[in-house]
Amino acid sequence: MSTRERVRTLVDAPIFQHVIIAVILINAATLGCETAPALVATYGWLLHAVDRTALAMFALELVARCYGYGWRFFRDPWNCFDAIVVGIALPPTTGAFGVLRALRILRTLRLISVIPSMRRVVSALLAAVPGMASIGALLVLILYVGAVIATKLFSTIAPEYFGDFGNSLFTLFQVMTGEAWSEVARAVMAEEPLAWIFFIGYIAITTFTVLNLFIAVAVSAMESQVSRERESGGDDGENVRQLLAEIRELRAEVRNLRVGEPVRHA
Amino acid sequence: MSTRERVRTLVDAPIFQHVIIAVILINAATLGCETAPALVATYGWLLHAVDRTALAMFALELVARCYGYGWRFFRDPWNCFDAIVVGIALPPTTGAFGVLRALRILRTLRLISVIPSMRRVVSALLAAVPGMASIGALLVLILYVGAVIATKLFSTIAPEYFGDFGNSLFTLFQVMTGEAWSEVARAVMAEEPLAWIFFIGYIAITTFTVLNLFIAVAVSAMESQVSRERESGGDDGENVRQLLAEIRELRAEVRNLRVGEPVRHA
Amino acid sequence: MSTRERVRTLVDAPIFQHVIIAVILINAATLGCETAPALVATYGWLLHAVDRTALAMFALELVARCYGYGWRFFRDPWNCFDAIVVGIALPPTTGAFGVLRALRILRTLRLISVIPSMRRVVSALLAAVPGMASIGALLVLILYVGAVIATKLFSTIAPEYFGDFGNSLFTLFQVMTGEAWSEVARAVMAEEPLAWIFFIGYIAITTFTVLNLFIAVAVSAMESQVSRERESGGDDGENVRQLLAEIRELRAEVRNLRVGEPVRHA
Amino acid sequence: MSTRERVRTLVDAPIFQHVIIAVILINAATLGCETAPALVATYGWLLHAVDRTALAMFALELVARCYGYGWRFFRDPWNCFDAIVVGIALPPTTGAFGVLRALRILRTLRLISVIPSMRRVVSALLAAVPGMASIGALLVLILYVGAVIATKLFSTIAPEYFGDFGNSLFTLFQVMTGEAWSEVARAVMAEEPLAWIFFIGYIAITTFTVLNLFIAVAVSAMESQVSRERESGGDDGENVRQLLAEIRELRAEVRNLRVGEPVRHA
Repeated sequence: MSTRERVRTLVDAPIFQHVIIAVILINAATLGCETAPALVATYGWLLHAVDRTALAMFALELVARCYGYGWRFFRDPWNCFDAIVVGIALPPTTGAFGVLRALRILRTLRLISVIPSMRRVVSALLAAVPGMASIGALLVLILYVGAVIATKLFSTIAPEYFGDFGNSLFTLFQVMTGEAWSEVARAVMAEEPLAWIFFIGYIAITTFTVLNLFIAVAVSAMESQVSRERESGGDDGENVRQLLAEIRELRAEVRNLRVGEPVRHA
Repeated sequence: MSTRERVRTLVDAPIFQHVIIAVILINAATLGCETAPALVATYGWLLHAVDRTALAMFALELVARCYGYGWRFFRDPWNCFDAIVVGIALPPTTGAFGVLRALRILRTLRLISVIPSMRRVVSALLAAVPGMASIGALLVLILYVGAVIATKLFSTIAPEYFGDFGNSLFTLFQVMTGEAWSEVARAVMAEEPLAWIFFIGYIAITTFTVLNLFIAVAVSAMESQVSRERESGGDDGENVRQLLAEIRELRAEVRNLRVGEPVRHA
Repeated sequence: MSTRERVRTLVDAPIFQHVIIAVILINAATLGCETAPALVATYGWLLHAVDRTALAMFALELVARCYGYGWRFFRDPWNCFDAIVVGIALPPTTGAFGVLRALRILRTLRLISVIPSMRRVVSALLAAVPGMASIGALLVLILYVGAVIATKLFSTIAPEYFGDFGNSLFTLFQVMTGEAWSEVARAVMAEEPLAWIFFIGYIAITTFTVLNLFIAVAVSAMESQVSRERESGGDDGENVRQLLAEIRELRAEVRNLRVGEPVRHA
Repeated sequence: MSTRERVRTLVDAPIFQHVIIAVILINAATLGCETAPALVATYGWLLHAVDRTALAMFALELVARCYGYGWRFFRDPWNCFDAIVVGIALPPTTGAFGVLRALRILRTLRLISVIPSMRRVVSALLAAVPGMASIGALLVLILYVGAVIATKLFSTIAPEYFGDFGNSLFTLFQVMTGEAWSEVARAVMAEEPLAWIFFIGYIAITTFTVLNLFIAVAVSAMESQVSRERESGGDDGENVRQLLAEIRELRAEVRNLRVGEPVRHA
């Protein structure tokens, strides 16, 4: 057994996985504690030390798995996910990269890749995404067109909502989720009474499209459920095929009866 | 018939159940009346007396059922539920336990355990819970990670929403339900214009996950419906199995025809 | 043909139905116009005259149908519906009954009972109601219990939301629909930080229950759809039954072959 | 090959479609840039020139397709859609038609008619519309009746929400979407405490109707999915029909056996 194989056996051992899960949970707790200034003031050195140790262990684990599996390591998207969320903490966390310090907690999402049942759930969720692509693209198109029209028509009337293109995009996304849309619409309608045409049309179209997006996800979920059930046996198709086989044998026997087999008399 | 059996027969008698339902409804009404200071000022003594009597009857009923069924009593989770909601009123309702006085109304939930159709509905609802466990855990994970990031990034910008970790958890739960999220986001974006990335990402991920949670519940409800229908007969599977049996008998008869039975001539 | 039969033929004639629909639409328009003070000031006498005429025609139609069908008239719930919405305008519309003047527009809902496709849609909607009864009762129970607890705990903290029992019921209904619940919760939590337990628990329970209510409606809609499809033919069951019949005849023939029928030689 | 056929071949060529898609995207970008005053000040002439060129190309394309296909051109609704969204920019965009300048961006929606997968998605969405007609008409009826009642009862209490009929329609549409309905209801209930009956009744009825509208869309989506699956083979019906054919041939053989074919003896 080569070193490579030994490393692979090690990183795939259940005990190793359990240690990693424990480290993730401890690290999640310390990163949570870091949000409390009082705790940081007193135990900051400890939280920092635990965080560094956890980071070191994650890095070691990834290097070990990378060594153990070679290039195959990068073919599993979950490994890439692990590498990215662990790697977030590596750049110097000063200046423009300061925000990355806050993103260290994303490491906790490694729980998803480490626990098989979580991994399955997320894979199932992601499997629904491609089916949403066309309707999603349609929604983006509607958002874009709506934002251009709204900026053109309402930028001077309600600059806090439709002041520039980015602003309009955000406001229209908000209206699409149904959040405080009446506030936005009433602010515009105070000056341009006919604006209700735009808002009600936009809401009707996006609600209908989003509803269909949701239905597409639901239908695909039900289908995969149904096909899984069929595979797991107990379907009529199997019985019907068996019937067909029986009947064909029966016909063959009857044909034999006619063309030559003796009918033995007692 | 032992005393134990006699007690059991008594507590299972329909008339006994009807009395208990009546007591629950009367007690619910008096506890509702206790919320009106005017009524308490005039009829407080009466409401109190009815409440005490109802409590005594519930306690007696539970003791009787406990005696009648012995240890089996605690095996039925509905009995434990009854014991807890009745027991809430027993600790002294002063000081730290003062809140328990307000929870006496939970006794009214005994209607669920006493009326069979309500019991079935709630059992059906609870049966959907295990299927939600994985996606629920994922949502908790997303909430935790989101709250740590939001506290780190926005605690100084919008302390009323993201001041500390608990605050952030509550605000992100609120955003997840789509309630006034634009207000929260605009408050943060006033100082940190790029915050829309966090909010829109968070909303997209949680909405999609919650949608899948809902779909999981819907799919499991439909499946249990479908399987109930199949059991209640009228399915094709039964017909097909009957067909198969008929054909096998037919083949046996044809085989008999060939191997020995005399074909009688007229 | 008796007078009664002649009246029945008249009220069931398509042309009669079309006239009634036209009167309903004209009446709906005049009642809509009555909401504009400017129109009432100028054409008030005309609107009033049209309204009176329409009312007279509806009353006549109902009397005619009542005469034509006799007691059977009241057996059709749609006739009772018609009688009630037309009858609303009959009491003197002054004093305590003033609100009935505003309800005259409910007559427009007669469109539902007159147009067959609308009638079918509403019947289908109402058919889903009994299946919702158990979960609906559960929701009412949760609302009641929640309102008692909320009034007890929060009536002094947030009297504008939980001041008395009716107030609490309204607020909790509002929270159940997810409308501005964070505003309510934050108002209470400003004084009682632990109130989040109540609100998040209440939202989780009611959202889950309402979701199941919706799923129950969806499942029953799909089932009735599926069963309608099966009835409208094209199902496998029919084929399978035909198969079974064929095989049984075949067995009978084979049995005949064995027990006596001569096998004729060429 | 006539000129007409040559033109037809040209406009249907994939390369031609790709050019049109590119022009749509470029035009969408320039129209988006026109919302930024800073960009218009500097590059206004360029954006204007690109817009004019794109318009010219779209007009030319439409003329070419119209010439190539003759009257059949107008039979395809997508062509009419193209003609309208391109034609929007043609009237003089001054005075009352000024709003049309803002609607030029609707041209970007031509992406839907040009890209086949988008076209399919939108066709599928539109296919669900007829099934929604009856429930949609019911919703409009409820809105109309509700608006008349609300204007009559609340116009003096809350003129900002129910001041006139149009105002009431908008407010009730808003309440139907569940947006800030508690704000509206509380404003009215401050003066007319019994108004909760109207609001809760209205919300219950519209929510239930909208839910059924959504379910109707979902059911029709699932049905079309199911029927598509059946058509794409793999169904039991086919097997059962094959079985039936086999059994009938078998019976014919057995009948032959009885009525004449010799059973040959060894």
